[in-house]
Amino acid sequence: MATSELGKLNGLVGDVKIDFIDSPALRGNPIGDPSIRPLAVYTPPGFDPQGSKRYGVLYVMHGYTGDVAALVSARPWETNVVQWIDRLIVEKKMPPTMLAIVDGNNRFGGSQYVDSIHNGDYATYVIRDAVGHVDAHYPTIASEGGRAILGKSTGGFAALYLSMTYPGTFCAFASHSGDTNFLGTYVPEIAKTQRALERYDGDIRAFVEAFEAKPKKSLDEGHVMMFIGQGAAYSPRAAQAWAIDLPFEQKTGEFRPDVMDRWLAFDPAELVREKRAELARLRLRYLDCGNRDEYGLDLGARLFTQRARDMGLEIRHEEFDDDHRNVGYRHAVSLPALAAVLEVG
Amino acid sequence: MATSELGKLNGLVGDVKIDFIDSPALRGNPIGDPSIRPLAVYTPPGFDPQGSKRYGVLYVMHGYTGDVAALVSARPWETNVVQWIDRLIVEKKMPPTMLAIVDGNNRFGGSQYVDSIHNGDYATYVIRDAVGHVDAHYPTIASEGGRAILGKSTGGFAALYLSMTYPGTFCAFASHSGDTNFLGTYVPEIAKTQRALERYDGDIRAFVEAFEAKPKKSLDEGHVMMFIGQGAAYSPRAAQAWAIDLPFEQKTGEFRPDVMDRWLAFDPAELVREKRAELARLRLRYLDCGNRDEYGLDLGARLFTQRARDMGLEIRHEEFDDDHRNVGYRHAVSLPALAAVLEVG
Amino acid sequence: MATSELGKLNGLVGDVKIDFIDSPALRGNPIGDPSIRPLAVYTPPGFDPQGSKRYGVLYVMHGYTGDVAALVSARPWETNVVQWIDRLIVEKKMPPTMLAIVDGNNRFGGSQYVDSIHNGDYATYVIRDAVGHVDAHYPTIASEGGRAILGKSTGGFAALYLSMTYPGTFCAFASHSGDTNFLGTYVPEIAKTQRALERYDGDIRAFVEAFEAKPKKSLDEGHVMMFIGQGAAYSPRAAQAWAIDLPFEQKTGEFRPDVMDRWLAFDPAELVREKRAELARLRLRYLDCGNRDEYGLDLGARLFTQRARDMGLEIRHEEFDDDHRNVGYRHAVSLPALAAVLEVG
Amino acid sequence: MATSELGKLNGLVGDVKIDFIDSPALRGNPIGDPSIRPLAVYTPPGFDPQGSKRYGVLYVMHGYTGDVAALVSARPWETNVVQWIDRLIVEKKMPPTMLAIVDGNNRFGGSQYVDSIHNGDYATYVIRDAVGHVDAHYPTIASEGGRAILGKSTGGFAALYLSMTYPGTFCAFASHSGDTNFLGTYVPEIAKTQRALERYDGDIRAFVEAFEAKPKKSLDEGHVMMFIGQGAAYSPRAAQAWAIDLPFEQKTGEFRPDVMDRWLAFDPAELVREKRAELARLRLRYLDCGNRDEYGLDLGARLFTQRARDMGLEIRHEEFDDDHRNVGYRHAVSLPALAAVLEVG
Repeated sequence: MATSELGKLNGLVGDVKIDFIDSPALRGNPIGDPSIRPLAVYTPPGFDPQGSKRYGVLYVMHGYTGDVAALVSARPWETNVVQWIDRLIVEKKMPPTMLAIVDGNNRFGGSQYVDSIHNGDYATYVIRDAVGHVDAHYPTIASEGGRAILGKSTGGFAALYLSMTYPGTFCAFASHSGDTNFLGTYVPEIAKTQRALERYDGDIRAFVEAFEAKPKKSLDEGHVMMFIGQGAAYSPRAAQAWAIDLPFEQKTGEFRPDVMDRWLAFDPAELVREKRAELARLRLRYLDCGNRDEYGLDLGARLFTQRARDMGLEIRHEEFDDDHRNVGYRHAVSLPALAAVLEVG
Repeated sequence: MATSELGKLNGLVGDVKIDFIDSPALRGNPIGDPSIRPLAVYTPPGFDPQGSKRYGVLYVMHGYTGDVAALVSARPWETNVVQWIDRLIVEKKMPPTMLAIVDGNNRFGGSQYVDSIHNGDYATYVIRDAVGHVDAHYPTIASEGGRAILGKSTGGFAALYLSMTYPGTFCAFASHSGDTNFLGTYVPEIAKTQRALERYDGDIRAFVEAFEAKPKKSLDEGHVMMFIGQGAAYSPRAAQAWAIDLPFEQKTGEFRPDVMDRWLAFDPAELVREKRAELARLRLRYLDCGNRDEYGLDLGARLFTQRARDMGLEIRHEEFDDDHRNVGYRHAVSLPALAAVLEVG
Repeated sequence: MATSELGKLNGLVGDVKIDFIDSPALRGNPIGDPSIRPLAVYTPPGFDPQGSKRYGVLYVMHGYTGDVAALVSARPWETNVVQWIDRLIVEKKMPPTMLAIVDGNNRFGGSQYVDSIHNGDYATYVIRDAVGHVDAHYPTIASEGGRAILGKSTGGFAALYLSMTYPGTFCAFASHSGDTNFLGTYVPEIAKTQRALERYDGDIRAFVEAFEAKPKKSLDEGHVMMFIGQGAAYSPRAAQAWAIDLPFEQKTGEFRPDVMDRWLAFDPAELVREKRAELARLRLRYLDCGNRDEYGLDLGARLFTQRARDMGLEIRHEEFDDDHRNVGYRHAVSLPALAAVLEVG
Repeated sequence: MATSELGKLNGLVGDVKIDFIDSPALRGNPIGDPSIRPLAVYTPPGFDPQGSKRYGVLYVMHGYTGDVAALVSARPWETNVVQWIDRLIVEKKMPPTMLAIVDGNNRFGGSQYVDSIHNGDYATYVIRDAVGHVDAHYPTIASEGGRAILGKSTGGFAALYLSMTYPGTFCAFASHSGDTNFLGTYVPEIAKTQRALERYDGDIRAFVEAFEAKPKKSLDEGHVMMFIGQGAAYSPRAAQAWAIDLPFEQKTGEFRPDVMDRWLAFDPAELVREKRAELARLRLRYLDCGNRDEYGLDLGARLFTQRARDMGLEIRHEEFDDDHRNVGYRHAVSLPALAAVLEVG
């Protein structure tokens, strides 16, 4: 049984610990987010840090407004990703595997895990600094065949994006309700964002600071933060705090295709067409989404899937009857599927 | 006081009657909607059909799911457009003026008041048949200077569209929360529509017939009907029932810019750039919208306004603190404003 | 086919007209509501006012915020009670029958159709003045066996209440989602009502006048109006405007059993226990309700039914999968059932 | 700075640790909940377990569906109670004080912290076992004057209930949006609960087991669990699993005053009238609630306050503009207020 406090609070048979790593890729970022980040490492029952066995590692990218602390939190009647992997291993649904949760949060509630002159180089931080730390400090299978990446929502986007743009790091991905098909997903957010910013004369910084000062944040304001955060990730104007372009005119909400084009350069449903080779080397390409997803991401997953299949790639694609929230039970499908393609140490 | 039953149910000092006109423009339309339509005619206190006084006429275009019967209905605690004009005239806020409500409903819940090879020629029906009937049977000022057009939501779209495309008919328009800026307004409807149609294998007819058969219609399904109706109006594929293009791929919801371009040809915010002359001859160009409009039409009104002003046109543009529903109280502003520019008979 | 404007707007084969009656029972009521009221009379296809055939009459009591004008209004995709009876007769689902809609609205949005020293004697107005008018001016079967009563929500309450308290008037009732089991239905409204009134220092008049002055009424405020209206009907303090008791303490919302007891004297689920004889003489006792009714009235209908059956009375009781709104399609069941027990003239 | 993982994830200057205690009061309870429970202990900056300084302790009772793990969880943009006390102490808004979070969860999502023959003796567990553990293992002021109790929602109820029924344990309480005025709060839940249980033929066990098996729990079902849990706490029928009375008839939802009377024996707004002496010995009696509380608990707080003041007791009572959720920012008021009346060690 778990011996750490966190492990016990989570009722684990294996255990979980938190490392803190200082990422060179994040140092000195314009917006001032910390470069020291927690990294949660789950080790399965029977894990022996000194033993000869080597483990495959599932890298988890959390969703928007998430972070490492949130993902290792236990709550009655809920099952977090650490509890899921522990249960699945104990029930012999998958072999003993490690799992690492990377912290991709930033001042906007999420960095999208991409390199940005405004936010810092979050992709580099994940691929080089976080993966490097795990391989350096744990008995892992320290190669492509020993690593997979997964996540939900923004974390699902990250699984798609990082698999395609950093080939050789992971051998499989699972995207749960991941962001893709940006046009269909983000255009509907424009009106809300325009109005929220207008109350601050279009001053993004003023909006963010007012948001941070509120004792209670509304869901709508959180969406606006997300939109801003996407601008900071996908369309920064300069390597300077608050220099962010958004894909609409401030006064009228008129759509700006020039800025949206910069966003689309990150859109997995667009990227897929240029990344056949990177995708082909993967052993598993997994996407799922609820068929009532509030952001229409089920359609995004279909579009990604269709384009990949049109290029002759095999995709495991599932839809289920649910919306965007609390779909952690899909880990019962994705974790064993990913573990099954990892090399055995 | 009113002598007709309808007039009395509405508590009018003036009166209202329903004419039924048989519109050549609507005869034989592919979808099978009737060519005989009710036309509500409000006459102010003191109206004498045989007298020498001639009246200006305000033409009202109803919104989506509306029709003539709905607009002349009275309900406790509500004020319909006929009750508004009657009250405003009685209170001397505006001179005695006639008002005519044109029926633009069809099988999809709304024709958008445009000529369509699929639906019938609703624009022609309004401009030629309905206006013609009123001028033929009532003591009107039968010229541009004696007519204005107004409406809410789809009716506001109609006021904008018909003013710009049929110059010489009206001398003023008022658009309340009118549809404009189609990209921002309709892209958010795609996911919902895709999913609803998918349950019928993408068969529009099957969806519509199932919808019609339901004893109770949901709001979401009504939105899908509206989207289909817009396709029938803006992007018919042929002069044949159910031959309708929609601006997305059936299976993935992928945006289809080719079809959307056909829709945009009707978008007032686009049309405005080509219709400077038509707009310039008007005596009043009035748009308003609630600043919490669920469809973002406040932004559409701003965009139309900005583009018109950029061409040197004067626009009366107002925003108010409300959403899209039940904004009939704005008639207290628009009706006197329109009446004020009409010629006096 | 219909010849009246209203009949044509409703697309009737039979016809509908509006009479205006001046009710002695309502004259001089403290709150100042009019005594002259519209009464809608539907006559079936083939109706001959001078013929020898006598008709049974279904009396319809509208719900809260309804009135005669609202119930005869036609809207696309909806079917009102007049359209329902017309369709059912044309389709031979029921014999030619008349239908009369009585206006029970008042300043609070509904009188509950009971005699009240505060509101006026609405029960007497229905039973004596409205029924008397119909029998005096139309070829009816002018006795208990020729009349039935029905309604939805507050109208359903009225059908239950008036059947039990004015025996000899109707031979059958149908209550659609009718108010009963007041404790379960009204206690949940207390907090909302307390807070709304507190903004006016508990001054009912100030609240009502402010409500009336608002261009747009919210649903929550409408509920508060209903609660006040129930106080005016069930627990008036004196025959004087605004002298109304409510079943809670103004400052704390503390439940006041003494006032609630006066309300319960009108509760059909309570009354049923004292009205065995009055119920036994009826030929049909019909209640239905949606099993997701927002006000829990499905439970009220069950309770009424159980208590009646415990006394040996037969009840036709149906539940259906729906909520409280837009259940007019249940007329397809109730109207033929009521007509089937009416005497034939 | 914190040295424990939990303390670091929470960003504390002080620290937090989790003890596990085995409560005799909970052993062998009929429903089978564990007797071993986590207890979170916050220690302020400068805390020295071996030093001579003695600390006052604030005991936190979590709300429904909460537990110790949930309350020590950190999330972006949120501040939990441990982070609040740490921040307030660092900012010198209150003196260094300890804080202990007691786990009152059970199979129904909450035990209400009362002794129940069905659930186990949760009150005894708090008062004797948890407080006893803290005093035995930490340098506390181990008497009434060194302890205060607080909580939100069900935790607020517990603060009120335990202060009144176990005099001599705490010298102050703070109830945030605490459950009181059960009649107004729980009657509105009856219809929902009746319908949910009916799907399982009224079999509470079947409902609970089906609920537990669902991968995703709805808010409505959670409310039903809460209602059942209240029955298990307030009106158990026997010391046997699932022997629970509820305050309504299963088939009709008819209110059962006999069962509700047993609930009311725990209602703080009722208890207050019998507990003048117990309340009088306290140094601070604090209640607050949002004025839009969905359960009407603002009215409950008013009623408690009025009754206490009528007995000559001083109450600190505050209302604020908010609803029931996420009101943790009120700790900025309550924690310093409670700390201010604790004895200094």
